[in-house]
Amino acid sequence: MEHLSDWVIEFKRAYPEAEVLVGAEIPAAVRTDFLGAEVGTAELYIKVHSSAEVSAALKFAHANQLPVTVRGAGTNLVGSTIPHGGLVLDVSALNRVLALDEDNRTILVEPGVKLCDLQALVESRGLFYPPDPAEKQATIGGNIATNAGGMRAVKYGVTRDFVLALEVVLPDGSLVELGSPCLKDATGLNLKHLFIGSEGSLGVITKCLLRLIAKPEATAHALIGFKSLAEGISAVNTLYAANLAPTAIEFVEKKVIAFGEQFVKAEFPLPEYQAYLVVTFDGKAESLPSQLEACRQAISAQHEIGFLPLTDPVVAQNVWTIRAALAKAVQASGVWEPVDTVVPLKSIVTLIDDIAALSAQEGVRILAFGHAGDGNVHLCILKDEIPLAQWPQRLERVLTQLYARVYELQGKVAAEHGVGRHKRQYFLAQVDPTELQLMRLIKHSIDPYNQFNRGCGYAE
Amino acid sequence: MEHLSDWVIEFKRAYPEAEVLVGAEIPAAVRTDFLGAEVGTAELYIKVHSSAEVSAALKFAHANQLPVTVRGAGTNLVGSTIPHGGLVLDVSALNRVLALDEDNRTILVEPGVKLCDLQALVESRGLFYPPDPAEKQATIGGNIATNAGGMRAVKYGVTRDFVLALEVVLPDGSLVELGSPCLKDATGLNLKHLFIGSEGSLGVITKCLLRLIAKPEATAHALIGFKSLAEGISAVNTLYAANLAPTAIEFVEKKVIAFGEQFVKAEFPLPEYQAYLVVTFDGKAESLPSQLEACRQAISAQHEIGFLPLTDPVVAQNVWTIRAALAKAVQASGVWEPVDTVVPLKSIVTLIDDIAALSAQEGVRILAFGHAGDGNVHLCILKDEIPLAQWPQRLERVLTQLYARVYELQGKVAAEHGVGRHKRQYFLAQVDPTELQLMRLIKHSIDPYNQFNRGCGYAE
Repeated sequence: MEHLSDWVIEFKRAYPEAEVLVGAEIPAAVRTDFLGAEVGTAELYIKVHSSAEVSAALKFAHANQLPVTVRGAGTNLVGSTIPHGGLVLDVSALNRVLALDEDNRTILVEPGVKLCDLQALVESRGLFYPPDPAEKQATIGGNIATNAGGMRAVKYGVTRDFVLALEVVLPDGSLVELGSPCLKDATGLNLKHLFIGSEGSLGVITKCLLRLIAKPEATAHALIGFKSLAEGISAVNTLYAANLAPTAIEFVEKKVIAFGEQFVKAEFPLPEYQAYLVVTFDGKAESLPSQLEACRQAISAQHEIGFLPLTDPVVAQNVWTIRAALAKAVQASGVWEPVDTVVPLKSIVTLIDDIAALSAQEGVRILAFGHAGDGNVHLCILKDEIPLAQWPQRLERVLTQLYARVYELQGKVAAEHGVGRHKRQYFLAQVDPTELQLMRLIKHSIDPYNQFNRGCGYAE
Repeated sequence: MEHLSDWVIEFKRAYPEAEVLVGAEIPAAVRTDFLGAEVGTAELYIKVHSSAEVSAALKFAHANQLPVTVRGAGTNLVGSTIPHGGLVLDVSALNRVLALDEDNRTILVEPGVKLCDLQALVESRGLFYPPDPAEKQATIGGNIATNAGGMRAVKYGVTRDFVLALEVVLPDGSLVELGSPCLKDATGLNLKHLFIGSEGSLGVITKCLLRLIAKPEATAHALIGFKSLAEGISAVNTLYAANLAPTAIEFVEKKVIAFGEQFVKAEFPLPEYQAYLVVTFDGKAESLPSQLEACRQAISAQHEIGFLPLTDPVVAQNVWTIRAALAKAVQASGVWEPVDTVVPLKSIVTLIDDIAALSAQEGVRILAFGHAGDGNVHLCILKDEIPLAQWPQRLERVLTQLYARVYELQGKVAAEHGVGRHKRQYFLAQVDPTELQLMRLIKHSIDPYNQFNRGCGYAE
């Protein structure tokens, strides 16, 4: 590291477009995550604009065995962009759309392209990128690194299912393409799938070839009110058993809605119910009314419900504004902890019941909302009036019990946010030692100095 | 290996159910693949009935650094079950259905369960396993090891998309579970996806947790005749652009049909056309006629076609019997080479044209059929009257040019059969050296003695 300043001069000469900061010049904003509660340290920050810059930077980092932390838009919620010293590699400006192939329905983008921009572009051409994580400001590279899911996963699958190929710069600075534009591939080990969801622990994604579909002609939503969350969740199985192919099935409790209502000053419909599903269908416009009606019939045969097709634009706008504002409303309420756990579908009701009991037992408020259609339960654990000094221990008690229960139900720590730093201790407490060893063996074979996302997720 | 006979006595005492053969006792039938042209060597053959037997056998093989070749039903077409000495581990009797969870729509099976048996079982309960490779006698373990695809991949995806979790015995004999019953997972490296499609090169799959869906109410097919194969293939894009969501889109040339017709003594309809698509839709019975009509309208707007909904049971039976008999008809015709290549959708027509030119130039007959909906082109290269002594060189000339062209079109050697021994030289000629090195680094970290599928696929 004694030659850092010399190397920076040479690097800037070779790549005048790159932004390079060293030591105290590096702002805290690029050393933290979306929550901002923890700020890491870094010696070198590079905002790159090309694969060649990434390769050159990684060669230097490799020669000096520097820790490397990759960041995009910095929207992650698990501390995976908090550096552990070394190099922060910022790919947010590596954000060109390189090719939109309308015949083959693929798009080639750099990892810093934002999800919202990608969606807008392809939809303007009559195409559709189905993965739809809630955070539209996140980058595609970040979406791939966490295998982001989102609402439409119920019908279409997650980010993994739409990644055809990746260009990756490996820890030693070499560049490799993984995958292909083909829809099937049984040619050697599928390394693309190893990198998807690896949270930046194996290298840097520098190009992403994504699969698109034709844009559905229309979309329709219905709000369904239930007397209890358990009833709402059990109705999800009814939808699957009836093969109704909804695009999304979201659930939210009335007490969570109250946060959103206050935050955006709007009123949520069907106020007499305690919990809600928002069910979405897409397809031919003419087929949607019959799909909504089949949905109403299937569920009302088993539950006393309120069923409101969201056809009134004002009502629909209110529902979506409140739903979209939930995370921000919780954020504005003070200190809180986001949880992104997942259990098998049939265990959601058990988990929700156990969470209510845990909340009462520990005197900590826990709000639940999320993706009922795939078992992905998002919790907000609120500090409320608990003194800040007591909060870490109180939270740890809650999370330890929560994740132990999740694993008893054959669930996992992370559905779509990743493990990062914040969930690491709970992941390590639950993961099978043989599986962990296997992950680390593979990481060591690719990243022998353990440079990438050190102390994060499964990494040592 | 001097202690082999001692070990066998001990192993049989511990696991009396296992069938063990040594040396000359091992029949040629378990040292070859479906084609049967090449027979390998083996010192030890074990037909296992439990994960514990697999683990014990692999511990012995590991201690003695024995090559290990796993086999199921032996239906593979690429020589991946031809052993290179050492141990042949036969999992075909590891074939119990361990749990069918109708609420969660999952099934837990051992790897030796045959695809046909799995499909029949789940369909009898109103459930559905969408992957549908042509070879129904193949095992689920083999399907996972090759990431088998099949006809319904167009709508539902391939085997990979329906594997929730695997129990795997690693080369050192340790047992690990990868994945979970959850529909989303971003918890550490996704090792399940690394094992899927790895062709037995990383260990032995001993349990498979598969995702099911509710069984579609009904299925409808149409045969569409075109004046040329190129027209038929270009119609595939029309179907996608119209967002018609077919279940399957198969293509076949008239000259290939002739083989099938002779073989099963049945007549194919629409004989005045040169090439055919068979398009399948599934869903609610009431919606299928309108889907077929939308399909007819979309394609006939651009092409002069014959359109025959396969509603007459006799006609439908003939079409499917002939289609299903193609591989066997070709097999019965004499020596031939199966090709399982894949290119991006938009390149299928170019590839088919180039294959016709290559066939003429080299004086070798090449028949094409396969999965038009996903770019997966199956070719049958026929020896016909070429003298057997000249065949290997003639075939190699054809395949070398064919795969070079496939890679120019950004295609891959193997879509769903795997690389095995037979396609290895062509794969090695085309694969990016950095990607190959990465595959081998990872294999070495899991299988340090290179025991598994040595000389097969990407393995050294």
